[in-house]
Amino acid sequence: MPAPLTITEFDTYDLRFPTSQHLDGSDAMNPDPDYSAAYVVLRTNSRDLCGHGMTFTIGRGNELCVEAIISLASLLVDQPLEALMRRPVELYRRITADSQLRWVGPEKGVIHLAAAAVLNAVWDLWARSRGTPLWRLVCEMTPEEFCDCVDFRYLADALTPAQALEILRGQAAGKEARIERLLESGYPSYTTSAGWLGYGDDALRDKCRDLKARGWSHFKIKVGRDLADDLRRCRVLRDEMGGEARMMIDANQVWDVPQAIEWIRALARFEPWFVEEPTHPDDILGHRAIARAIAPLRVATGEMCHNRIMFKQFMEAGAMQVCQLDSCRLGGVNEVMAVLLLAARFGVPVCPHAGGVGLCEYVQHLSMIDYVCVSGSVEGRVAEYSDHLHEHVHDPVVMKDGCYMPPEAPGYGVRFTGAALDGYSHPR
Amino acid sequence: MPAPLTITEFDTYDLRFPTSQHLDGSDAMNPDPDYSAAYVVLRTNSRDLCGHGMTFTIGRGNELCVEAIISLASLLVDQPLEALMRRPVELYRRITADSQLRWVGPEKGVIHLAAAAVLNAVWDLWARSRGTPLWRLVCEMTPEEFCDCVDFRYLADALTPAQALEILRGQAAGKEARIERLLESGYPSYTTSAGWLGYGDDALRDKCRDLKARGWSHFKIKVGRDLADDLRRCRVLRDEMGGEARMMIDANQVWDVPQAIEWIRALARFEPWFVEEPTHPDDILGHRAIARAIAPLRVATGEMCHNRIMFKQFMEAGAMQVCQLDSCRLGGVNEVMAVLLLAARFGVPVCPHAGGVGLCEYVQHLSMIDYVCVSGSVEGRVAEYSDHLHEHVHDPVVMKDGCYMPPEAPGYGVRFTGAALDGYSHPR
Repeated sequence: MPAPLTITEFDTYDLRFPTSQHLDGSDAMNPDPDYSAAYVVLRTNSRDLCGHGMTFTIGRGNELCVEAIISLASLLVDQPLEALMRRPVELYRRITADSQLRWVGPEKGVIHLAAAAVLNAVWDLWARSRGTPLWRLVCEMTPEEFCDCVDFRYLADALTPAQALEILRGQAAGKEARIERLLESGYPSYTTSAGWLGYGDDALRDKCRDLKARGWSHFKIKVGRDLADDLRRCRVLRDEMGGEARMMIDANQVWDVPQAIEWIRALARFEPWFVEEPTHPDDILGHRAIARAIAPLRVATGEMCHNRIMFKQFMEAGAMQVCQLDSCRLGGVNEVMAVLLLAARFGVPVCPHAGGVGLCEYVQHLSMIDYVCVSGSVEGRVAEYSDHLHEHVHDPVVMKDGCYMPPEAPGYGVRFTGAALDGYSHPR
Repeated sequence: MPAPLTITEFDTYDLRFPTSQHLDGSDAMNPDPDYSAAYVVLRTNSRDLCGHGMTFTIGRGNELCVEAIISLASLLVDQPLEALMRRPVELYRRITADSQLRWVGPEKGVIHLAAAAVLNAVWDLWARSRGTPLWRLVCEMTPEEFCDCVDFRYLADALTPAQALEILRGQAAGKEARIERLLESGYPSYTTSAGWLGYGDDALRDKCRDLKARGWSHFKIKVGRDLADDLRRCRVLRDEMGGEARMMIDANQVWDVPQAIEWIRALARFEPWFVEEPTHPDDILGHRAIARAIAPLRVATGEMCHNRIMFKQFMEAGAMQVCQLDSCRLGGVNEVMAVLLLAARFGVPVCPHAGGVGLCEYVQHLSMIDYVCVSGSVEGRVAEYSDHLHEHVHDPVVMKDGCYMPPEAPGYGVRFTGAALDGYSHPR
């Protein structure tokens, strides 16, 4: 009998891509991001099999995530994979609830971003060891197995394991048909590639035309730096898009609550499909006040919502009408699964955050899991897409008519190329 | 004319005290803390003048805070002190709102703990350069100068600068009399030194007798591991304390919301003065549900409440009847001042978190600032105290009849001794 597959050691990489040079990714809060990945490769006793995982940052501070990954990944050395994944919730707790490391979170900030990288790597390894893409691995789980991945601690007042099982069992019958549909036409996306704040009107117009020609019908534009500018840029975008396409506006947290309400009312004439991150990401009650004031316009947030306890409250309070969970800010696939269940429980559509680097490769799996296992619908749901930096991973996303096509390669989708590791590793 | 006082370089230290060996500090969430400080010394062009600042952790993860301090303190090198402190809110923003580092928070977790250390160090330097203890430096500010320390961003829906000024002006007349009172009888404290979960009943009894003899009348006990144990230990403590003393119970976040309500009801017979950290520290709406269910018992929380936006919501929602802000988790003195103002606005008494190492030295200043400038009262207010590890700083707290006596030494109170640096620096 061969030795069980066991994690033996790991390597970490501080990868930074100099995106600030071209103002890709620029918005009102983040004028000069250098899209970055704190990346870990879990090595095993099987030479050909590694687990690859990352978390996403925008430059400085990436080194902190790498340091934290070293602390957390050390907890996995000498662990056999199947023992770790027998009850995946135990893996989640091992990585997020170390009694001393918990103090520097808990479940937030650098330590939780690092937990995401490590958990994403274990899930990648698990899917690779089964020779299957991650979305399929999860979609083939029974409702009970799905629930065994979720930490229900602190959710009891909003979502019990029994309620989660009920949601999953309710969707079990249609899973095969939905997988067929995905294989045929993919999962719909929207794109921010046109709307960065650093682009001039001509660039905005050109990008919009190009994307429309390639099949997109949802366009997001960054706002919040200057109202007159916003009014002009929204007009340009709306004119180019045509009346049928959907426009979303994204303020990246720049407003106070009263200011948000006033500014959004001024932009309401462009009929945005949702308004993203109007104020500080921790401000549940502030988002609720904004949502009430601007209804029927909807508030979207979540890319900086740091754990399932925050999502629980945002949804329960009616402070989030669109859930933009982040694959690298939540504690890996486990915590994403918890948030998908919460969203189903509260009837909130999930439109995951992506862009950056690696995020598109991750969220395609998550939206497909949501569709097949949890929500059962693509109605009102689009996963974010941005057409940057895909050349740095081995199995980049495949888009067709503005839709993510289901990944076929084993794993979770982010394995950086040797050229990326050689060319973009940040010197210590 | 001499050159202006300027920060020229800095040193960092990863200090860990092996407290887990004696179960000091043990509770239901943190069974084996090693009280630790990520410590920074800002050096200046004046050889005798340095700024000392720390953040507090419980062991592993302290190295992450040290790394983050290096990133943040680098932003201060070559800066003249008086320019930094001309509008102290600009200092706060410089340290907390770097456009790339913000991503790994924002204003939470490792990066915000590190911001606390760096900001505490600048405030220490400022007070030392004036030859005055920090509490006096702040108490001598005008209401306008006080407000210039506070970042009101994201607070507009709850507290405007005008409302803050009104609070401060309302207390201006009595400041001198309150300072006199402090110099005479100090600021009242309570102690957790008796109630750690790792102590047996006899140790609990002995510690309680000793502390009572030394003047304390408020005692906190850790609960939440086992209900039968809690009932027995609360009985022991209540018997020893006598009916007049106040008992507080602290669950350190172990319960889900429904479980918290049930457990607290079982302990209500001991008439606790407040119930601390019943559930996850991010769960504003959960705390509100608990507070409503157990009223008139009061909910205390805040030691893990990570920024002013969270405090705003806790207070606005009626989810926090006692504010236990932390001098090392909030962004330094600046953000503490914001939370003191919020607490006054919502009528919530501030009883700062302390214990650990260095925290008592810090909170004495903060409670005195609260009393003199903001709340104007000690009614229902006690600062936490624990009698551990004071020997490691140059100017340890001075207690008299269970009260913190006003510090007289210049600075903010935490400058570790050479022996502490030599004996407890953690190897990399």
